Amino acid sequence: MDRRAIRILGIDPGLRRTGWGLIECEGNRLVFVACGSVETNDRDDVAARLVVIHDGLSRVLTDHCPDEAAVEATFVSKDASATLKLGQARGIAMLVPARAGLPVAEYAPNLVKKTIVGAGHSEKSQIRMMIGVLLPKADPRSDDAADALAIAVTHAHHRASARLARMLLAGG
Amino acid sequence: MDRRAIRILGIDPGLRRTGWGLIECEGNRLVFVACGSVETNDRDDVAARLVVIHDGLSRVLTDHCPDEAAVEATFVSKDASATLKLGQARGIAMLVPARAGLPVAEYAPNLVKKTIVGAGHSEKSQIRMMIGVLLPKADPRSDDAADALAIAVTHAHHRASARLARMLLAGG
Repeated sequence: MDRRAIRILGIDPGLRRTGWGLIECEGNRLVFVACGSVETNDRDDVAARLVVIHDGLSRVLTDHCPDEAAVEATFVSKDASATLKLGQARGIAMLVPARAGLPVAEYAPNLVKKTIVGAGHSEKSQIRMMIGVLLPKADPRSDDAADALAIAVTHAHHRASARLARMLLAGG
Repeated sequence: MDRRAIRILGIDPGLRRTGWGLIECEGNRLVFVACGSVETNDRDDVAARLVVIHDGLSRVLTDHCPDEAAVEATFVSKDASATLKLGQARGIAMLVPARAGLPVAEYAPNLVKKTIVGAGHSEKSQIRMMIGVLLPKADPRSDDAADALAIAVTHAHHRASARLARMLLAGG
């Protein structure tokens, strides 16, 4: 079984604020590495704001060298204009790790909540509390950073079960 | 009055096909430069497809050195999942020229149609026909490339009137 520590970058994309969170996982052990968020000025035009998100996430990759990335599969609301804005930010959030050669996984918000809290319809505050339990050293200063860490933890859990499934199928 | 030829890149973003079209404008004269489209494979994952769009548009910028860019303000349909996909492609279409330092203008599809055909609700075939009249040397092989040229022509018209308005306000 692969015991090398894997560094996972979780991203919670948004045009105004894009949260990011880094954890390391070695087998079942999860360790907090860093988290933060990239903020844009809503008085700037969209193109300039996308460049800020791009450059901010690129810096996270350069500073922390993650091995894999996971992005929240954006909630599709009834507000088409909000969905479009979210889509634009999400395009950048997927592009940056993909261009760096990282595999990029996607997780639906309800799966993230279920993995972290145990229920698909939980509150932001519950996510934040469970992140404190799962990653005691984490100090997310915003909901976006906490959500990004939750996405990274979700990926750590699901990549482990996917690997187990592959081993069982291979009769290993 | 500024008589230097300005090279304009029009982009019609889409996850499956992103059209691009380049024209040069010098005063009222418009000249076709090049056009094409960046296609992605819908069996690849979204992150990989966004990288293809990014690299394709980056190559257009390197090859043709445009001065300004214009992107179609994506039609917001009732299908939220289609809007999200379009948003992701559009994020890349705005990021690439913005990162290169180009001003990026946005035009609604109806304004493009009105500028090119004279009516806000016109058919794709009418756009294509008018592109043939306005840019006789153009040979768009796809609707996306023709649309991208239409966006570039729209920007050429509107930047000229915006400049005229500035001159009049300055009492020039």
